[in-house]
Amino acid sequence: MAFTHRFPVRFEDVDYARIVYYPRLFQYCHWSFEAFFPQEAGLTYAQLLEKRKIGFPTVHARADFLSPLRFGDECRVVLQTARLGTRSVTNAYRLYAGEAKAPSAELEIVTVAINMDSFQAIDIPEDLRAAFLKHPVKDR
Amino acid sequence: MAFTHRFPVRFEDVDYARIVYYPRLFQYCHWSFEAFFPQEAGLTYAQLLEKRKIGFPTVHARADFLSPLRFGDECRVVLQTARLGTRSVTNAYRLYAGEAKAPSAELEIVTVAINMDSFQAIDIPEDLRAAFLKHPVKDR
Amino acid sequence: MAFTHRFPVRFEDVDYARIVYYPRLFQYCHWSFEAFFPQEAGLTYAQLLEKRKIGFPTVHARADFLSPLRFGDECRVVLQTARLGTRSVTNAYRLYAGEAKAPSAELEIVTVAINMDSFQAIDIPEDLRAAFLKHPVKDR
Amino acid sequence: MAFTHRFPVRFEDVDYARIVYYPRLFQYCHWSFEAFFPQEAGLTYAQLLEKRKIGFPTVHARADFLSPLRFGDECRVVLQTARLGTRSVTNAYRLYAGEAKAPSAELEIVTVAINMDSFQAIDIPEDLRAAFLKHPVKDR
Repeated sequence: MAFTHRFPVRFEDVDYARIVYYPRLFQYCHWSFEAFFPQEAGLTYAQLLEKRKIGFPTVHARADFLSPLRFGDECRVVLQTARLGTRSVTNAYRLYAGEAKAPSAELEIVTVAINMDSFQAIDIPEDLRAAFLKHPVKDR
Repeated sequence: MAFTHRFPVRFEDVDYARIVYYPRLFQYCHWSFEAFFPQEAGLTYAQLLEKRKIGFPTVHARADFLSPLRFGDECRVVLQTARLGTRSVTNAYRLYAGEAKAPSAELEIVTVAINMDSFQAIDIPEDLRAAFLKHPVKDR
Repeated sequence: MAFTHRFPVRFEDVDYARIVYYPRLFQYCHWSFEAFFPQEAGLTYAQLLEKRKIGFPTVHARADFLSPLRFGDECRVVLQTARLGTRSVTNAYRLYAGEAKAPSAELEIVTVAINMDSFQAIDIPEDLRAAFLKHPVKDR
Repeated sequence: MAFTHRFPVRFEDVDYARIVYYPRLFQYCHWSFEAFFPQEAGLTYAQLLEKRKIGFPTVHARADFLSPLRFGDECRVVLQTARLGTRSVTNAYRLYAGEAKAPSAELEIVTVAINMDSFQAIDIPEDLRAAFLKHPVKDR
């Protein structure tokens, strides 16, 4: 199973070439990461940061852009966890134009759990591990 | 005299209609406001916020968009102070495509000085008053 | 009755002061304007631009920012039509933090109907007039 | 030798964690790519797109984020060409906080030359090849 998040490609998301400006595709992944928490882990990303003082800064990212997304498309993001370490999680994102079978982009984003006060790496707590493990890449 | 700030209209700044997406024109004004401080007040906006704990949130904005700015234009922003109150300052911005005589947009932005810890309004300190008074609208 | 659009305030939407960066509130209004068309006029804003070659560039904007929106808030935008001219429409937007009674921001945005090929003003077609008239400000 | 581009980290560039939101670092690379053309190839990126109908969409990106950039930093981007193919160019970007010796981020971005009308890949013209070859990674 995979976590899926959908939203429209907006008027502002395209650049002069009238395709989605590629840095926005990383934003789309972050939006999906933010949407993951309330649905899968029972708290919002804001609550995670503010109440539990846990953040997930990105330390590595890798992306293949296969075909353009355009204004008017619905973007469908499929998020799965590729690797879950003690302190880091690698999520795989595939972005599709609506119900297209072939993805428009495939991204892999490595984030590290940190304490928001010290900015030091911490072990990923059990409830968050469980949330990530609901959607492993092997189920693809 | 007026404070002037210049930068290129970037690939990402235009929308599907290939003209600058209008909310970005407010960003352009904020960029100019940020550039004003080091040049006119002797400290960066970051230093103002972090060291002196003074911020200038916007409470009112008004804009007329007269002609589009396009990718490839250099945007020239002319910033002048229209009204300087005890705790608020109203800055007038005119945005031009390069050396055009007629502005592309005219904006008026009212900001209030606050203490960044309490978020309460404070009197604008004398050194900042002096900076704003260097560029009154009457000199237009 | 009013058209309402909801979305989360995202991690990236706040600035160094940890409140929503004010130019984004104009983006929020544009997102709501884009969401209005499929729900109220039976076509997406992309279809309006691409198929019917009609756009609505903004010529004037006015905003009062009353209280900050913060990361973790749900932003609720209430869109109503304040004035409907032959070629222009003035929409009033009130932005709320979730179910708060008092708005965080009140904006008025004047847009003009244009032909996307010529960029010349045109009369607003009847079906779009009908859509705007569903939500007049007097119903507030 | 390397092509260097500098700009301030702006108020809006940081997220709730008060460090630069990582997708912006890809924007910073694109800004630097845009700034490269007028200085190194004798024409603006807008002219390349509009007059010569040549674009450089991104097909692959890879990034390591090593230390945060913060509001108030000057971002210094060093751009070098890592590989120059017939139709593609891979540029390496290192982003620094001001004059720091250790980079904050290292990115590699693969772009393909296309004709803007057909969106088909084309050979990179000689004048652009020459521009990229001025700054090979081996000079690092």
